[in-house]
Amino acid sequence: MTVSDPGSSSLLLRRAGIDTYQQPVVYMHRDCAVCRAEGFAALTRIEVHVGERSLVATLNVVVDDWLPTHEAALSEAAWNRLRPQPGERAKFAHPEPARSAGALRRKVFGGRLDDDDYRTLIEDVVGDRLSELELAAFVTACAGDRLDGVETISLTRAMLEAGERLDWGAGPVLDKHCVGGLPGNRTTPIVVAIVAALGHRIPKTSSRAITSPAGTADTMEVIAPVALDLPTMRRVVEHEGGCIVWGGKVRLSPADDVLIRVERPLDFDSDGQLVASVLSKKLAAGSSHVLIDIPVGATAKVRSDGAADALAQRLQTTADALGLRLRVHRSDGRQPVGVGIGPVLEARDVLQVLRNDPGAPVDLRERALDIAGALLDMVGSEGRQRAKRTLDSGAALAKFMAICAAQGGFREPQLASFRHEVVTDRDGTVAEIDNRRLARVAKLAGAPLSASAGVDCRTRIGDELRRGEPLFTVYAASQGELDYALDYVAAQPGIVALQEPTV
Amino acid sequence: MTVSDPGSSSLLLRRAGIDTYQQPVVYMHRDCAVCRAEGFAALTRIEVHVGERSLVATLNVVVDDWLPTHEAALSEAAWNRLRPQPGERAKFAHPEPARSAGALRRKVFGGRLDDDDYRTLIEDVVGDRLSELELAAFVTACAGDRLDGVETISLTRAMLEAGERLDWGAGPVLDKHCVGGLPGNRTTPIVVAIVAALGHRIPKTSSRAITSPAGTADTMEVIAPVALDLPTMRRVVEHEGGCIVWGGKVRLSPADDVLIRVERPLDFDSDGQLVASVLSKKLAAGSSHVLIDIPVGATAKVRSDGAADALAQRLQTTADALGLRLRVHRSDGRQPVGVGIGPVLEARDVLQVLRNDPGAPVDLRERALDIAGALLDMVGSEGRQRAKRTLDSGAALAKFMAICAAQGGFREPQLASFRHEVVTDRDGTVAEIDNRRLARVAKLAGAPLSASAGVDCRTRIGDELRRGEPLFTVYAASQGELDYALDYVAAQPGIVALQEPTV
Repeated sequence: MTVSDPGSSSLLLRRAGIDTYQQPVVYMHRDCAVCRAEGFAALTRIEVHVGERSLVATLNVVVDDWLPTHEAALSEAAWNRLRPQPGERAKFAHPEPARSAGALRRKVFGGRLDDDDYRTLIEDVVGDRLSELELAAFVTACAGDRLDGVETISLTRAMLEAGERLDWGAGPVLDKHCVGGLPGNRTTPIVVAIVAALGHRIPKTSSRAITSPAGTADTMEVIAPVALDLPTMRRVVEHEGGCIVWGGKVRLSPADDVLIRVERPLDFDSDGQLVASVLSKKLAAGSSHVLIDIPVGATAKVRSDGAADALAQRLQTTADALGLRLRVHRSDGRQPVGVGIGPVLEARDVLQVLRNDPGAPVDLRERALDIAGALLDMVGSEGRQRAKRTLDSGAALAKFMAICAAQGGFREPQLASFRHEVVTDRDGTVAEIDNRRLARVAKLAGAPLSASAGVDCRTRIGDELRRGEPLFTVYAASQGELDYALDYVAAQPGIVALQEPTV
Repeated sequence: MTVSDPGSSSLLLRRAGIDTYQQPVVYMHRDCAVCRAEGFAALTRIEVHVGERSLVATLNVVVDDWLPTHEAALSEAAWNRLRPQPGERAKFAHPEPARSAGALRRKVFGGRLDDDDYRTLIEDVVGDRLSELELAAFVTACAGDRLDGVETISLTRAMLEAGERLDWGAGPVLDKHCVGGLPGNRTTPIVVAIVAALGHRIPKTSSRAITSPAGTADTMEVIAPVALDLPTMRRVVEHEGGCIVWGGKVRLSPADDVLIRVERPLDFDSDGQLVASVLSKKLAAGSSHVLIDIPVGATAKVRSDGAADALAQRLQTTADALGLRLRVHRSDGRQPVGVGIGPVLEARDVLQVLRNDPGAPVDLRERALDIAGALLDMVGSEGRQRAKRTLDSGAALAKFMAICAAQGGFREPQLASFRHEVVTDRDGTVAEIDNRRLARVAKLAGAPLSASAGVDCRTRIGDELRRGEPLFTVYAASQGELDYALDYVAAQPGIVALQEPTV
């Protein structure tokens, strides 16, 4: 690495005022001393040094005079991570070639990697030494069944070692995770409230949506702050037994947060990466007993019993290798759970269940009780009955409100102003509901970036409908997004498929 | 697709003055009417419409006031492709989901794709409907042996159909291609000059470097303009019989030009993609007889006879399926060819050979004669003798100068000002030369973006050297780049490996 001499070639930093999502970008004038001395050109990867801090950013070259040649500008992501003081200067260097380049190449060309390879790769992922293209190549090279069982263990261990690991002292630490793909299946806040109300520790970290209209962190965030740092999360759990926070802020599996940046726009992941992602986070959170919910259905993430078997086996083998107690719980994945799909609409459902509201979605309540029961049974008995009593008595609601308060304060979710009810143009019985296309409608309407966007779907398989009766309602924060989602609905008949009545 | 109403939500276009290489980027203020109406956020893919022209760009969101809310700014790549008039406004829309998303997903997860799938994928590649991440995923999913023979034919056909196809009328049209990986192996300008001087048609298009320090187009560009449009290229070939132009400008295989954008930074490609890339371009150029040179060596692109067999077979099968006459020529790929590595240094070697300069690299001359001979033998006999006579007589030089003049004018290459001779610290006999690491030195010194950067290496396997004698010389356009390349050289002993003298 050749760090340029600060006298001749450091540049004064300013904020570019440009949001490039999580990609750090540095802007320099093509005639500046640094570009000329180092031969930097557009899209070069550059190491930026500010005092003791540094990061690798992508260069965008400024070709007119909005940026003077003695300054460099930083995108929001780069600015927030380097936090320069007013008047502070940066030095620039060519980054060292990523140490993992060889391992990445071997994986791309179909090779198997070992513990050391994955450790090197994950260190480079966390150190931001891989470009977005290289991250995409890594994710693609591991897709499908290209990561075997032994590699999955190596990757999980590497991801675990790349971040902090919490220690809660003696006694079991519970956790749950749902493999997802089922719109509206937001049991986590309910399960955490029940389990914590019964005196167990459950330090739950959740992700934002990867390929879905809402992750648990997105949903919880409309009710209470979730971007807690590690000391705050620890305090919440020590006081209340449980929490529901965003895993990205506590950075318990920092590699995962980076990989999600490309998995999300690419909209694909793999069994091996899924297992490594989930289990590295559970282990980092200090969990000892974990229940994994796998909904199975033709349009869920896991589409068949065979696929569920393979995933369950991969989870169990990896958990065993890393000393984690794990149980798999299978559930019906044929249709959405609850009514809402999207952060605000799902949050409303969760609160209705916790409040024992007569209009609360029964299926969401039953699923939450099943999962809480199965999790409690891992460390005791009669889990489901105890879960039900805790929910019915209001103890779960009280615990949930206490957790929200500890996380920074409860707030009531607000519904979106733009909405449209989609009705059936014929009579019939609901035969199928396409989870994926329904989720796609919610995403086109703006979820999860627009928290109040989404879909309400009260229809269930077996319902008999008359022409003109509602199938689902689309919510959006703007007319443009609502129109966009409805264009898709119009072009995709049969998202809720009706069987004609037999005469 | 919902194109926003121009009255309420079109924005005035301006040039952002930001070079993002070939990625089209659009900058909008987060509070502008379009972002608010459409729910656009950072990194959203956006369709930009200006009059009849449109493209899909990536959104960067401006969060301070350098960009007013009634304007949108375009990166250089977006500006050059949309070419807005002063005061022209743009409309914006969510792009339709890429039609090839399903096919891409299947390929990523290990499926086989058919003709239609590849046609759809390549249409989306050419139409810029795939993001950089999706392109990276596609290239990765086809890496190694993940593209079979039938798929290679489908991909080649799809790439051919995606662009224009030249027709030169009756009679053979010759062409040559080298699979690469051998620094300095710049035979093309010499072969074209010889073949054209003998009255054959050879409309050669070449690429810029993908993963090497120089492509033929980069080298040729320091001697004469290569960025010719199709009508100009046609005129040059009609007058002179041959040309050496940049394939990216004539867009004969436009898909290839897009894929190279990610292949180059990722630094990997595959047999299947290589075959599709090469043959689609030859077919599009209207060639009927093609000679493919495959240098084989431990550190060349093709490392073993087995790998060369597989590639030769793939090339032959695909050519047969598409009606192209193809012959494979294998050559020694154990060490660099000529002296220079990098555009200017290679151009100097080429001119020395054409000028019959006594100092001209003999190996480059011999290789050019071998290839010209083998190519001439595909349509006649005694090729090598005829090639030698044409070169020795000066007829090839005269033809080359005529081609340069027709392409826009000859210019003499200028060497770089910063240089450093790397010497051996011991006595010994040269046992091995690492082509890859030598190429890497040239790239770290700035090649090919910096045309005069690179490496001169006169050392050859078998040479006996004394301590202090030169191994190679590094050239750079700036001190920073020279230092950077020399740091690498210092950290990598044995790029030229010496065997100790036996006592």
